[in-house]
Amino acid sequence: MEISHIEHLGIAVKSIESALPYYEGVLGLKCYNIETVADQKVKTAFFQVGQTKIELLEPTSDDSTVAKFIEKRGEGIHHIAFAVPNTSVALTEAESKGIQLIDKTARPGAEGLNIGFLHPKFTGGVLTELCDHTKNE
Amino acid sequence: MEISHIEHLGIAVKSIESALPYYEGVLGLKCYNIETVADQKVKTAFFQVGQTKIELLEPTSDDSTVAKFIEKRGEGIHHIAFAVPNTSVALTEAESKGIQLIDKTARPGAEGLNIGFLHPKFTGGVLTELCDHTKNE
Repeated sequence: MEISHIEHLGIAVKSIESALPYYEGVLGLKCYNIETVADQKVKTAFFQVGQTKIELLEPTSDDSTVAKFIEKRGEGIHHIAFAVPNTSVALTEAESKGIQLIDKTARPGAEGLNIGFLHPKFTGGVLTELCDHTKNE
Repeated sequence: MEISHIEHLGIAVKSIESALPYYEGVLGLKCYNIETVADQKVKTAFFQVGQTKIELLEPTSDDSTVAKFIEKRGEGIHHIAFAVPNTSVALTEAESKGIQLIDKTARPGAEGLNIGFLHPKFTGGVLTELCDHTKNE
């Protein structure tokens, strides 16, 4: 698999509004976009840190997977997203090497990305997303 | 605080040897260094992914903080490390803004870094390290 960089890190928070003073006031990062991803039932806030974005994930519903994550483990780092040339190709490659997929093919994510998740039981407990910006899928 | 990029992500694993086939064989990353950090009671394995390193952390003792993390939460992402110009200055700034510190001043970490940790109770559950490469501390 060709991974160029870490596209983003997803961090589960109960409230973006409550988290902003830390990310902006203490770390000095700037939130440049807030976007709701309806099918994931999350509100997202983005910060650029070098090559990588930090994506805060606030659940918009109690049955959101992020709400369940927070209920079980508390707030914290939720997933890592690696940039690949083509998400569907990378998913197929991972599956061929024995990794169980959450997404069989790429689907639309926040910020116009094509995204797909690998199952954390096959990645050492790290919920792992593959993503690309190309529009060919 | 001036953060230039994410220097590394620490990922807790029970065994680096068992994790390598995923990181190298599936993700296609290359482990370029394995190093034991005696005072942290961990063995570390490093992979470069764009600007950021992935640092696998394998406990070398049952009383290592990483062993306790795995016991409590399972394997997974352990901490995020932001690159700053001067770790001690950044720690002091964070403390002045109400963030409780794990390290009052910078101390030596793996790969010749000066490092210091913020307490996760004050960072939305994210164990956060600040680090720099300068040799002036």
